Amino acid sequence: MWDALKDQGSPLDASFLNIVLSNPEKRNALSLAMLKSLRSDILRDAESNDLKVIIISAEGPVFSSGHDLKELTEEQGRDYHAEVFHTCAEVMMLIRNHPVPVIAMVNGLATAAGCQLVASCDIAVASDKSSFTTPGVNIGLFCSTPGVALARAVPRKVALEMLFTGEPISAQEALLHGLLSKVVPEAQLQEETMRIARKIASLSRPVVSLGKATFYKQLPQDLEMAYYLTSQAMVDNLALRDGQEGIRAFLQKRKPTWSHEAA
Amino acid sequence: MWDALKDQGSPLDASFLNIVLSNPEKRNALSLAMLKSLRSDILRDAESNDLKVIIISAEGPVFSSGHDLKELTEEQGRDYHAEVFHTCAEVMMLIRNHPVPVIAMVNGLATAAGCQLVASCDIAVASDKSSFTTPGVNIGLFCSTPGVALARAVPRKVALEMLFTGEPISAQEALLHGLLSKVVPEAQLQEETMRIARKIASLSRPVVSLGKATFYKQLPQDLEMAYYLTSQAMVDNLALRDGQEGIRAFLQKRKPTWSHEAA
Amino acid sequence: MWDALKDQGSPLDASFLNIVLSNPEKRNALSLAMLKSLRSDILRDAESNDLKVIIISAEGPVFSSGHDLKELTEEQGRDYHAEVFHTCAEVMMLIRNHPVPVIAMVNGLATAAGCQLVASCDIAVASDKSSFTTPGVNIGLFCSTPGVALARAVPRKVALEMLFTGEPISAQEALLHGLLSKVVPEAQLQEETMRIARKIASLSRPVVSLGKATFYKQLPQDLEMAYYLTSQAMVDNLALRDGQEGIRAFLQKRKPTWSHEAA
Repeated sequence: MWDALKDQGSPLDASFLNIVLSNPEKRNALSLAMLKSLRSDILRDAESNDLKVIIISAEGPVFSSGHDLKELTEEQGRDYHAEVFHTCAEVMMLIRNHPVPVIAMVNGLATAAGCQLVASCDIAVASDKSSFTTPGVNIGLFCSTPGVALARAVPRKVALEMLFTGEPISAQEALLHGLLSKVVPEAQLQEETMRIARKIASLSRPVVSLGKATFYKQLPQDLEMAYYLTSQAMVDNLALRDGQEGIRAFLQKRKPTWSHEAA
Repeated sequence: MWDALKDQGSPLDASFLNIVLSNPEKRNALSLAMLKSLRSDILRDAESNDLKVIIISAEGPVFSSGHDLKELTEEQGRDYHAEVFHTCAEVMMLIRNHPVPVIAMVNGLATAAGCQLVASCDIAVASDKSSFTTPGVNIGLFCSTPGVALARAVPRKVALEMLFTGEPISAQEALLHGLLSKVVPEAQLQEETMRIARKIASLSRPVVSLGKATFYKQLPQDLEMAYYLTSQAMVDNLALRDGQEGIRAFLQKRKPTWSHEAA
Repeated sequence: MWDALKDQGSPLDASFLNIVLSNPEKRNALSLAMLKSLRSDILRDAESNDLKVIIISAEGPVFSSGHDLKELTEEQGRDYHAEVFHTCAEVMMLIRNHPVPVIAMVNGLATAAGCQLVASCDIAVASDKSSFTTPGVNIGLFCSTPGVALARAVPRKVALEMLFTGEPISAQEALLHGLLSKVVPEAQLQEETMRIARKIASLSRPVVSLGKATFYKQLPQDLEMAYYLTSQAMVDNLALRDGQEGIRAFLQKRKPTWSHEAA
């Protein structure tokens, strides 16, 4: 169901994992099959030292329309519904717990769980024609799970208005409120996304991994515990081979050579 | 003390509860009597299946000037002071815990506990001439309780500057920082507020109620617990009569007919 | 290492404590010595009733370049590294726990722990030529400790993009996202900072202190506990001599005269 991005505008190697939502006829609905595929794609190469960054993009004018509503009928039953939402939550948490940064590249409408997917990525770049909406309330299914990711990205009143009215916000509004990292014209979307991805791919994988894990770990803590955890992480980072190489290279005014070794 | 909004520009029915701060000579100060009246107004019809949305607005050029300072003198005494703040906090928490969304419609200055009231609503629409301030520090009474609602709506540095300097922010700044959901010219304030209210009134009450309660429940949780709670809520939502009707209507390409039944 | 700000544009008295990072040849690097000096400067006069506000500024075109990388080499060793980060965290927490507001006045680049210092102040005013960056990842040392302060000031996606790419944001972007309280042209930086500082210095010290402490105390709590703590603080504030004087003066339409007495 997922193909590697073909025309990347730049040679790709094992540093990049491109995950493409490629079911545009179904508006890239996040069916259970699609979610399982996404889960295994995200997990693919997670432990490879070569992998530096993941990019999630989509074919067609809709990034993703969210859950497949045919899977949420009464006939499918409660257990099936539970599996859908459980798998979806698992995908979102895998993104956060993944050792490398995950970038969403959005070119079009992201709806409900599709909006949740964008909000769950570490970085999100969108074309200026993109828009974002959590319209479940219109069809009697409040976007409570998308709300988890949304509420952690934007101010409360922005999230609540989106959730209660189901109305879309533009890419510019999404940028303003923190749902997106960057908005560019459609023609520059791939270039800008790849610029960020290449930058991340040029860094030391264990340094970035430790940094990402530490960031999310300290986030819910009080200030004292957050500083305890991160001060420890800084010391551990300096003890990494790449931590020492980086400081040394800086003081010697040369480019660092990363080993990407985990210790 | 509170009158129903008279000239609503649209026929009102039991779906809407209009609460109007209507003591403009006193700048709609939140005296203890006013707070108790507000509390009973908010509780009125809370359990009625007809009620879909609450709108809080105000008469006169000041939305609300906050607590009545005559009630906070030394002569009134500590117990009276405690009752004022306790009742105020109760009102703010009732708004959050209410089964239907509460919209603030602001046309003018909202000060101290008045600003807190706006920040505590789920949605806030304001005219562009409105402004917001927490000036207690000027008269030796730091706006600590308003700061609770403010700090949960805007970035920390915005809240702290407002609290430490007592200076007002404009409606546009309030929108930018997340205190407001929408800013419109004064002439369109009622129309825009009612547009949002009517939209919410057209939805299924038990779906919106479950969504609102779930949103605030997941908000302080870590990601795993938040997804656990909300995945459960999604399954429960689908089991609601209106959840099933909504999905069915969508797949059958017709408008849903809500029963508003709680199960 | 620290000199009092000389050309303040206004007479200064014991109300103001100016802490100036004054090692511009080293880009005001936060060496361990600098951090210890900063710590003792921040603690100086903390208990004096005269002190009303602290302003942290810097000499030269760089506000601060962050840690001194010469102190983070392998040769310095793990214990030394730990002391550096521990002392740095201590400084940041002292700012938050200080009885008076701390204002950062930024005119230039604030990097890594320098950016953390700005984010940790209660209020931050910057010239429009200033910029902010957490570029540790470029030299193999992820800005995990700066990320603590950054993540509590700006939306998550803004923080992560800064941390993962190491790219700077402008003063305007920093303002938009909540890292700064105000941005002004360079020529007005001192005037605007002093305007805010003088405003704070004109207030009652115990009222402001109680307000600041209460604000940070309620911030991580759930709504009910936050209102419990702050309602109590409001009652305590009213029992302060300056709390009573402030209300009385307001009702008597005269300027209050603060005693600055702690009870």
